Amino acid sequence: MNTFGRKFRVQVFGESHGEAIGVVIDGVKAGMPLCKEDFMEDILRRKSGAKGTTPRIEADEPEILSGVFEGHTTGAPVAIIFRNMNTRSGDYDSLKDVPRPGHADYTAAVKFEGFNDPRGGGHFSGRMTLPVVAAGVIAKKQCGFAFSACLKEIGGEKDREKWPDLLAMTAREGDSLGGIVECRIEDVPAGLGNPFFDSVESLISHAVFSIPGVRGIEFGDGFGASRMKGSEHNDCYPLKKNGAGGVNGGITNGTPIVFRVAFKPTSSIAKTQKTLNIKSGETVDLNVPGRHDVCFALRTPVIVEAVAAIVLADMA
Amino acid sequence: MNTFGRKFRVQVFGESHGEAIGVVIDGVKAGMPLCKEDFMEDILRRKSGAKGTTPRIEADEPEILSGVFEGHTTGAPVAIIFRNMNTRSGDYDSLKDVPRPGHADYTAAVKFEGFNDPRGGGHFSGRMTLPVVAAGVIAKKQCGFAFSACLKEIGGEKDREKWPDLLAMTAREGDSLGGIVECRIEDVPAGLGNPFFDSVESLISHAVFSIPGVRGIEFGDGFGASRMKGSEHNDCYPLKKNGAGGVNGGITNGTPIVFRVAFKPTSSIAKTQKTLNIKSGETVDLNVPGRHDVCFALRTPVIVEAVAAIVLADMA
Amino acid sequence: MNTFGRKFRVQVFGESHGEAIGVVIDGVKAGMPLCKEDFMEDILRRKSGAKGTTPRIEADEPEILSGVFEGHTTGAPVAIIFRNMNTRSGDYDSLKDVPRPGHADYTAAVKFEGFNDPRGGGHFSGRMTLPVVAAGVIAKKQCGFAFSACLKEIGGEKDREKWPDLLAMTAREGDSLGGIVECRIEDVPAGLGNPFFDSVESLISHAVFSIPGVRGIEFGDGFGASRMKGSEHNDCYPLKKNGAGGVNGGITNGTPIVFRVAFKPTSSIAKTQKTLNIKSGETVDLNVPGRHDVCFALRTPVIVEAVAAIVLADMA
Amino acid sequence: MNTFGRKFRVQVFGESHGEAIGVVIDGVKAGMPLCKEDFMEDILRRKSGAKGTTPRIEADEPEILSGVFEGHTTGAPVAIIFRNMNTRSGDYDSLKDVPRPGHADYTAAVKFEGFNDPRGGGHFSGRMTLPVVAAGVIAKKQCGFAFSACLKEIGGEKDREKWPDLLAMTAREGDSLGGIVECRIEDVPAGLGNPFFDSVESLISHAVFSIPGVRGIEFGDGFGASRMKGSEHNDCYPLKKNGAGGVNGGITNGTPIVFRVAFKPTSSIAKTQKTLNIKSGETVDLNVPGRHDVCFALRTPVIVEAVAAIVLADMA
Repeated sequence: MNTFGRKFRVQVFGESHGEAIGVVIDGVKAGMPLCKEDFMEDILRRKSGAKGTTPRIEADEPEILSGVFEGHTTGAPVAIIFRNMNTRSGDYDSLKDVPRPGHADYTAAVKFEGFNDPRGGGHFSGRMTLPVVAAGVIAKKQCGFAFSACLKEIGGEKDREKWPDLLAMTAREGDSLGGIVECRIEDVPAGLGNPFFDSVESLISHAVFSIPGVRGIEFGDGFGASRMKGSEHNDCYPLKKNGAGGVNGGITNGTPIVFRVAFKPTSSIAKTQKTLNIKSGETVDLNVPGRHDVCFALRTPVIVEAVAAIVLADMA
Repeated sequence: MNTFGRKFRVQVFGESHGEAIGVVIDGVKAGMPLCKEDFMEDILRRKSGAKGTTPRIEADEPEILSGVFEGHTTGAPVAIIFRNMNTRSGDYDSLKDVPRPGHADYTAAVKFEGFNDPRGGGHFSGRMTLPVVAAGVIAKKQCGFAFSACLKEIGGEKDREKWPDLLAMTAREGDSLGGIVECRIEDVPAGLGNPFFDSVESLISHAVFSIPGVRGIEFGDGFGASRMKGSEHNDCYPLKKNGAGGVNGGITNGTPIVFRVAFKPTSSIAKTQKTLNIKSGETVDLNVPGRHDVCFALRTPVIVEAVAAIVLADMA
Repeated sequence: MNTFGRKFRVQVFGESHGEAIGVVIDGVKAGMPLCKEDFMEDILRRKSGAKGTTPRIEADEPEILSGVFEGHTTGAPVAIIFRNMNTRSGDYDSLKDVPRPGHADYTAAVKFEGFNDPRGGGHFSGRMTLPVVAAGVIAKKQCGFAFSACLKEIGGEKDREKWPDLLAMTAREGDSLGGIVECRIEDVPAGLGNPFFDSVESLISHAVFSIPGVRGIEFGDGFGASRMKGSEHNDCYPLKKNGAGGVNGGITNGTPIVFRVAFKPTSSIAKTQKTLNIKSGETVDLNVPGRHDVCFALRTPVIVEAVAAIVLADMA
Repeated sequence: MNTFGRKFRVQVFGESHGEAIGVVIDGVKAGMPLCKEDFMEDILRRKSGAKGTTPRIEADEPEILSGVFEGHTTGAPVAIIFRNMNTRSGDYDSLKDVPRPGHADYTAAVKFEGFNDPRGGGHFSGRMTLPVVAAGVIAKKQCGFAFSACLKEIGGEKDREKWPDLLAMTAREGDSLGGIVECRIEDVPAGLGNPFFDSVESLISHAVFSIPGVRGIEFGDGFGASRMKGSEHNDCYPLKKNGAGGVNGGITNGTPIVFRVAFKPTSSIAKTQKTLNIKSGETVDLNVPGRHDVCFALRTPVIVEAVAAIVLADMA
């Protein structure tokens, strides 16, 4: 199902090249000021155009269909849509029988028996993260915590000064890069979450792994904790270090929630790749058409914030 | 909530030193052969006594209360309980005001306003993974896939031959170790899972992070994928390598699902630690009483399998 | 929450006089033919204009935003919106402090702290049944059962020939009428439903009571069963009579599901009514402006079918 | 699924003649005093032995397995079991191929492919209402509202003085009677519930229709409302009459919630009935063995209260 949450519930819909994509957010508190402008900062952070991201220009303007009256939320579901402007179906028609490596073309075709919308990945497109970001804006308002995510690594490189060269070089190679995003959530009270099965980490990882291209998540000391001694990893009281990432026994301890997310390199690359023609059974050469992000991870910090905010609005 | 699943639903209950711990499994298919003996192999894999795990001896014998008639499941909920035999309340009484570093003592007290059962971690005890393992046994039967998890690292050491010495040395230091478990799931058909928000990775990570002590999870190439080029990470068709861990766009692709889980070192250590007396506000020295696992990760492979099986039984 | 269902999930949104009302339907099977025209029959059955219903003319034209590609469902969520054309906010402004008897004006204001959209009942308007009817169209296709609901009584009168006079007379009095709708669902296989807590009757009644104005529901012999002997009420095998309404122990028995729904008289009447000015605390005379259905129950059979279809699509 | 609720979640399990029946209640507030004695009043109200109910004597003693420590709820799930003492499997063996009219024997066998426990109705037994009553006790404590249900009619007879004769006469005939229960819930604040699809009536009816033998439910003026004029049925402000049963637009208005539930006559009767031998296909005479309630509705008021309390604890 394309839904998350029990009390603050987010339902996304749409396809990359269909009429519109959108989201319905249910469980929004009544009386919060909300207008179109509130969405623009986060939408711009996610938007096309940054170095290393694709030049597809979309208005990305949210249309609020419901749940807001005289500039305030009404308590009824908030529906927001984004019209798809710049749709170029032609680019994708040839791909129907030739699944792109790293994409959902093949699995979507199996699951939906070939009826999935193949244009631009359809419902599986990274464009679907746009309504998620919109829902995140409302979630942030509603829970009131401070979310800040940023990219820490590109292609394993931590030094930001080297990123432009790395991106440029990889673009010239017709290849792509992944990255690691770190997210901190501050001002979270102690006591949120549950031991089984709805720990804070359970819910955050659930939401994070719905972002296309995530390969891993770790909290606090993360995978590094598995190589530490108990005496090193344990957070003694009063809490100073934060090896646990702000959560003990699934429940927030009042220190910031900290986690890192590993994004794979962009699947669409200019380099020729091998794939299978599903109809004929032949192995073929594939050149993915269109222009694509060298490193889509550049756009993801605001998406990570959004899904984390959706989780915390649902728990708070 | 202490529940997981929609179609195959698992509800756990109990406290480490209460009357009994247990689980209700709803959505079990009618007509599967099931008896007490079916549980013993997995229960033994999890059980106390292995090198590096605590000597607490519990019968760990499952009592099936419902849902089975004449040796077969009936389609009604299966309830299984485990009586707690070896309860030593006295060991834990002093801890009420002195939260153990790394444990849920503090967060549980905040969340439940001091009414949580403090004996042995109460509902937050690692003992709660026993009913989860029992649910996993039924889940494995129901989905019919092949689950195999094993420990790949202890304290960062990959060479199994060095583990006994490492464990012994760490025990002498009064300290503890973490580890990394890898889980493979084979015979999974293509087409399970959903793009938003119920990807296979979302659901597996949700369940995995309910196991006490998990710090991270990664699928396929995992965090390593963030350091690879697209041309290296992409799985070309026909699928041979498995950088994606068996999942594209949240949906299984028919290759094995592969993921790794990072466990922290055991929180309870013999070494003296600093903590806070919550009542007095003083920093105090703490010596956690009782005998504890040097490396509880040794017991976790079967628990990882169990939660993965619960997820897949719910999806299949 | 404004959602129903687990596998076939319906999320409604919108306000009577907002931008648009709509629905997202998740869990729609891929590959079903679906186009705008498929909705028109049921939309017309619900539409304004029938004798005894209000003359408000809306285009009521569905706009399918997602989930359909080349005339077939894709397996992704189907979003459908209806633009609100004929919005006359002015009619309702005065009502903000003066709740209309029988309406949700007062309870909505309490729940949403005065931020609810008051225009035409806002999210509580009977107009919200339009997207529900649209969802019902898809649900009927998906489950493939035969739904037929019709009005059996108006104002206690069973003789249809007397209805026109009764409606005309009540209109002249400035008053309104209720009615009883009977729904039959045929071609339902035995075995759907669950004993606790998701019996067929539980789920159908849950959905039916979300239709504004429902006061009661009964299955098979219904309230009459409470006055029968066991020997009269029991359905002997092979099943001929249907005192149980097609359900035993919460599970369909293969005979038609039959239930009746009681609708209250339209709340908005021309007659002057007493109410309270919430601000001043004074009792005041209220004349509800606008023209309203004498008997909105006339429109409800297709709505009852729709919610029943949503339930069965979710169970099937 | 055998579960109800999102925040206050009730999971039942067990079979009439199995090891034990029971319930897990999750979402119980920490810190409420709770002991075995708290359950006895409601358990006795439901218990066997009243005039017109069966003489089966069970200890019906609750065993609290978890969630309570030092006399207070801990915030962890509360599991309660009831051992089955007086099991007489022999009584029911012959029924396997011969479904009893009015019971779930046939539908259970279809749904669970013959693997359902047939002894005494198995999981479909009225005995399953015992753990529901136990959950109701906790629900009542948690929400703090005042629930009072009582039987208003037996076999259509409203005069209580005539009930003993009616029951005795029907017993002599080897037949059975139904009844109508009215439930009032007082001290409920305005503002609980939701318009779509989780109206107060939706949730209460959902829970009520999980009680075996319910044929109908109505709120406030109920089916009678369909025969009233709007001017008669509307509740004017300030609220005095309660035609709406305490709910407008799905949301409580602060007056008592009032509803009535129709129970069918007991299905098991001494009179010979016709049924089908499923194996042979022959119509046969059936004499249901054992002694049964003439009117099981006599026991149901406390069950109706329990499910209503579960609903309100989940909403509050």
